Amino acid sequence: MTAYRRPLDVVILAAGQGTRMNSALPKVLHPVAGRPMVAWAVKAARELGARNIVVVTGHGAEKVEAALGGQGVVFARQEQRLGTGHAFICGIDVLADSLQGNGHEDADVLVLYGDTPLLRSGTLEAMLEDHRARGSALTILTGELPDATGYGRIIRDAQGDIERIVEQKDATSEEEAVGEFNSGVYLMDSRAGELAHRIGNDNAAGEYYLTDLLGLYRAEGEAAHAFKLADPDEVMGANDRTGLAELEAILRRRTNAAHMRAGVTLQDPERISIEDSVQIARDVTLEPGVILRGQTVLAGGVTIGAYSIVTDSVLEAGVVVKPHSVLEGAHVGAGSDVGPFARLRPGSVLGAGVHIGNFVETKNARLDAGVKAGHLAYLGDVSIGAETNVGAGTIVANYDGINKHPSVIGAGVFIGSNSTIIAPRTVGDAAFIAAGSAVHDDIPEGAMAVARGKQRNIEGWSRRYWGGMKEKVQKKLPWLAGWLERQG
Amino acid sequence: MTAYRRPLDVVILAAGQGTRMNSALPKVLHPVAGRPMVAWAVKAARELGARNIVVVTGHGAEKVEAALGGQGVVFARQEQRLGTGHAFICGIDVLADSLQGNGHEDADVLVLYGDTPLLRSGTLEAMLEDHRARGSALTILTGELPDATGYGRIIRDAQGDIERIVEQKDATSEEEAVGEFNSGVYLMDSRAGELAHRIGNDNAAGEYYLTDLLGLYRAEGEAAHAFKLADPDEVMGANDRTGLAELEAILRRRTNAAHMRAGVTLQDPERISIEDSVQIARDVTLEPGVILRGQTVLAGGVTIGAYSIVTDSVLEAGVVVKPHSVLEGAHVGAGSDVGPFARLRPGSVLGAGVHIGNFVETKNARLDAGVKAGHLAYLGDVSIGAETNVGAGTIVANYDGINKHPSVIGAGVFIGSNSTIIAPRTVGDAAFIAAGSAVHDDIPEGAMAVARGKQRNIEGWSRRYWGGMKEKVQKKLPWLAGWLERQG
Amino acid sequence: MTAYRRPLDVVILAAGQGTRMNSALPKVLHPVAGRPMVAWAVKAARELGARNIVVVTGHGAEKVEAALGGQGVVFARQEQRLGTGHAFICGIDVLADSLQGNGHEDADVLVLYGDTPLLRSGTLEAMLEDHRARGSALTILTGELPDATGYGRIIRDAQGDIERIVEQKDATSEEEAVGEFNSGVYLMDSRAGELAHRIGNDNAAGEYYLTDLLGLYRAEGEAAHAFKLADPDEVMGANDRTGLAELEAILRRRTNAAHMRAGVTLQDPERISIEDSVQIARDVTLEPGVILRGQTVLAGGVTIGAYSIVTDSVLEAGVVVKPHSVLEGAHVGAGSDVGPFARLRPGSVLGAGVHIGNFVETKNARLDAGVKAGHLAYLGDVSIGAETNVGAGTIVANYDGINKHPSVIGAGVFIGSNSTIIAPRTVGDAAFIAAGSAVHDDIPEGAMAVARGKQRNIEGWSRRYWGGMKEKVQKKLPWLAGWLERQG
Repeated sequence: MTAYRRPLDVVILAAGQGTRMNSALPKVLHPVAGRPMVAWAVKAARELGARNIVVVTGHGAEKVEAALGGQGVVFARQEQRLGTGHAFICGIDVLADSLQGNGHEDADVLVLYGDTPLLRSGTLEAMLEDHRARGSALTILTGELPDATGYGRIIRDAQGDIERIVEQKDATSEEEAVGEFNSGVYLMDSRAGELAHRIGNDNAAGEYYLTDLLGLYRAEGEAAHAFKLADPDEVMGANDRTGLAELEAILRRRTNAAHMRAGVTLQDPERISIEDSVQIARDVTLEPGVILRGQTVLAGGVTIGAYSIVTDSVLEAGVVVKPHSVLEGAHVGAGSDVGPFARLRPGSVLGAGVHIGNFVETKNARLDAGVKAGHLAYLGDVSIGAETNVGAGTIVANYDGINKHPSVIGAGVFIGSNSTIIAPRTVGDAAFIAAGSAVHDDIPEGAMAVARGKQRNIEGWSRRYWGGMKEKVQKKLPWLAGWLERQG
Repeated sequence: MTAYRRPLDVVILAAGQGTRMNSALPKVLHPVAGRPMVAWAVKAARELGARNIVVVTGHGAEKVEAALGGQGVVFARQEQRLGTGHAFICGIDVLADSLQGNGHEDADVLVLYGDTPLLRSGTLEAMLEDHRARGSALTILTGELPDATGYGRIIRDAQGDIERIVEQKDATSEEEAVGEFNSGVYLMDSRAGELAHRIGNDNAAGEYYLTDLLGLYRAEGEAAHAFKLADPDEVMGANDRTGLAELEAILRRRTNAAHMRAGVTLQDPERISIEDSVQIARDVTLEPGVILRGQTVLAGGVTIGAYSIVTDSVLEAGVVVKPHSVLEGAHVGAGSDVGPFARLRPGSVLGAGVHIGNFVETKNARLDAGVKAGHLAYLGDVSIGAETNVGAGTIVANYDGINKHPSVIGAGVFIGSNSTIIAPRTVGDAAFIAAGSAVHDDIPEGAMAVARGKQRNIEGWSRRYWGGMKEKVQKKLPWLAGWLERQG
Repeated sequence: MTAYRRPLDVVILAAGQGTRMNSALPKVLHPVAGRPMVAWAVKAARELGARNIVVVTGHGAEKVEAALGGQGVVFARQEQRLGTGHAFICGIDVLADSLQGNGHEDADVLVLYGDTPLLRSGTLEAMLEDHRARGSALTILTGELPDATGYGRIIRDAQGDIERIVEQKDATSEEEAVGEFNSGVYLMDSRAGELAHRIGNDNAAGEYYLTDLLGLYRAEGEAAHAFKLADPDEVMGANDRTGLAELEAILRRRTNAAHMRAGVTLQDPERISIEDSVQIARDVTLEPGVILRGQTVLAGGVTIGAYSIVTDSVLEAGVVVKPHSVLEGAHVGAGSDVGPFARLRPGSVLGAGVHIGNFVETKNARLDAGVKAGHLAYLGDVSIGAETNVGAGTIVANYDGINKHPSVIGAGVFIGSNSTIIAPRTVGDAAFIAAGSAVHDDIPEGAMAVARGKQRNIEGWSRRYWGGMKEKVQKKLPWLAGWLERQG
């Protein structure tokens, strides 16, 4: 049934200051669930297949434009803040070219806001379908609340169309009792641009109000239809940081509920945060306190331990991330286990069945299948072949003070504990590095490298050493004091 | 007053698929608070002193049976899913032998479910007492809700006994108003097995309903009694992952409240998870985010820092675990302090007053009283005597690529920083290991071991080194660029 | 308008046991939001500018007095627990000297409690203003609840003054319907001390009740005024650990809301804990799970990552603390970044633009601008000059078994990975330390130090080594087994 669809142009009003945010950051740039509020509106517009997206900027315009730059968005500056009607004109005028010379059936025009991140594109899609199906000239998104105090109320006429919008301060007590309210989201035919220029500012505030479009369309003989939200929360905005936190909580619950329906176990969803860009397969388990961000993809059977944070990482089937791990930009092969207290940094590519233990950091590191690095290691700018064992305390010294150098370590290598591999270095397959070595030469395949001092034992040394600070030993180290005593 | 008690046989119905779980795991194996749902029913049955416990399996039977194997549970397979009555028959028939040839006073038969983990054995115990005290043939566990929509309603007769159970779809508006509902938990005399075979399937779904037992008992001239739950939540089941999370939250609050009553301080109980197998003494403090699992026992005065996770560990009086620590299978002596960022793995046995600091891992390690390992160390397969000081960066190299080897380090030993103890090794009491040593020979008591290179200083080297990459230095390291300049 | 103010004396009743706390710790010493309950009352009294603060102790008196010692508080022991009136007499008698010989206009006397930490000094300040403005002899702090069951009800007379206080057990059904209740907080003129001695104990319990002061003042011809709380929660007390947790949650929300109003972003405020002593500038961002304690000060633009814990630390503008870091007693210069998994201990003083990475610990360490210590290091008792690069695995070995020794490392130094600096040591500016060195001599400016073994490669070693345990290799290390095969 998707016949020819008119193009859609979207105007996003994002010029406000948001004084109560008490911030140097423009209100619409405050992030909710990992994305600036205005970017949620842009995302929704994009998901609707918008032809043009105009963002009307004002307060902090440079910052807003910088934040949204490179996303195919057009900006319109509202130099003076003269009301929502004026803001809309600023935006629609920028689109004049694309609308010019065409009939009003040329495009639909949708007005969105930079501070209502909960509005779903699915809701707008349904509104658009309804608008087109009814051949409407103007459809207003409305919501219904038990008590709509503060909002403009929707007054319908006998046909059920919208007759007027009454602002709170002008409402009679009968009108105040009306629960249906104006969300400010309007869908219009392409006359909107022209009609908007007829909005006047003959009112107490001297402002141009977008709501006046309703009367102007009606004066054209058009009926204004309402499209009522199932969930009025979708048009909730944030005026202060408490409001931001509330929006974030609603989004978090919405995202978490969707994952639970899709077969993901969330142990205590109130303590789990998942950005909406994350993909999670069925039968993944997330323990309390997990945070998932960015382009993260979790395959089936993955477990993420408590308090671990995974950003922009791909985890293949059955990977177990133990608690307190931090992954960013990593790819982890099937069946690997990571953590606790592991940190995989960007460019970490782990094959299947790799084991990364506690206090281990990898960065720009390729670890082939079966590599084990269980304890206290730094693996940077290195490629390591299959089944190589990285001893506890191993450091790949990749930095010379200015440059990073790469190293290549073969398969089946045994790296003894507390070794240092001084890059750039090549270590052949099946090589063996003695514990405590500082490897400053390459190692051929199958060779053992020893690069450490030889042990000397000096008998009787401790008696002299501790004897020299006998008093303190007696005070602090009773066992040693007794030993010293026994040595005579 | 505990006279002779009839044996109790329990039939747990656990054959359902739980499609809305959206999972490869059978519904009843989904864990709640650390235990598969069906295991909660088995635990309750066991706490009641059940003679036989039959679990009726169907969907994913192998997995369910594997999960409960070795626990003295008998399994009955329901090959076809023909209703609760049929499932019960599958179970009760398995018990035929133990019931055979005895009068119906031989045993009580209790029907439980694999997906109601909140049902307390204490509640069932009270139900059982009531059942026996009244000499009942059939007692049904009921609950009362303001609105019982969806449940079968309990219709009582003039005597207050249960006359009928009316399913939602068959209820008149008068019956719908009834708040008392059927939990499905039945307690019956041993005729249950025989009567169940008379249940018919002459209904729209063609299924055998367990509720029909009510009519069959009444036809035998028996009254059916109700035992009403004080807290109807106890029979809440989970049909999807959201339901699982709700059950887990209720269990968490129940467990946390019990600990608070017993004198444990929980800083923000909504963020603390304690499995019901954990024992905690009075005046223990748990900071936000703590997770306690398994057979963990905390003695008086213990403090567990924020976000620490303790599993199967025993902590003696006054132990302080600092934030972000992970303990598993450890025993920590009185007055020791551990963390932050410490990891004690299975087999870690710490004496009194041991100090384990940040980024330290122990595994299969015995640390006697007063041992200190404050920073960045790995202590595996080792025993360490009293008062030994383990320097920062110490690694016990216990692995040769295939085998783990044990080491023994004496009391009063000083292990210098960044040392490597290459196992198997014996270090005598009061030995002293120079910092940076790779210890590859045993050390006698009281001896100092040095196993490192000798220092050479090469004067003027840095001028040549940095001078060779002067441009980059100028760009990235202004102080060093200035120094280089001054060297001329 | 702040004219001459009479001195204020405060009596804090803190003698109760709190049996339901189930604790060895006296009830009033149980901490809420980082401060013992009774210390909140002392803090409020201090903020009111009290001349004298008397704390009446009884149960666990020594512990309470020890906890509040050195804070300029006077203690009065209530040896027998004979009721609130008796406790007040114990306290007021201690003040006899300061009141003696003066008229009753000499001072105001305020009665507070050791278990109501939510009462704001601002509320008491307003009560005090009201009391003085009205020239009252007695003002009682009251609250209003929809259902005040359990509390003493305030019965007002025709003038709106307080006529009687009716305890729950004595209340008629009409009196029970009264929602205004007695908080127990009384503000009185200096006759209070004398009048209190007239309180009798002719009642069922044989106790002296503080509420009797109302009748005694009225008998003196004085009207008793009520000062009603806007928020009745302010006088909530805690009788058990659940109550403690509730108080803590209310305080947490109160503190968090204030910070949000002041322009701080809290990502999920329900999971963030901030003690009220912490100062936070505008446009700071706190991720989920952050805990801020003590005298912490965060400047503008600071970000604290998830699950990090910051105590008594000062963070200058723009500092980024990544997740899972623990800071205590640290000073971090502008633009520095710290973590994840970093630990800054007391005496850590970081200049501007310092980088501290994962698994790094600093203690009593001065790091000048631009120092980098990115991985697995321990820096204790050391000063490090600007731009010095601390390689991965570096340990400053500051401990000789008994004493800590300081080291000085210059600017522009390059410390190679896995080096050990054995204190006390001086390393000159622009020195270069080869990786894996154990530095046991000082290093002159611009020199390179090498203190490690020389590498030897032993060809063919691995074939013999692994060949000697061929069977196990075949079982556990398939790649290596294949390699061994190929070696023939």
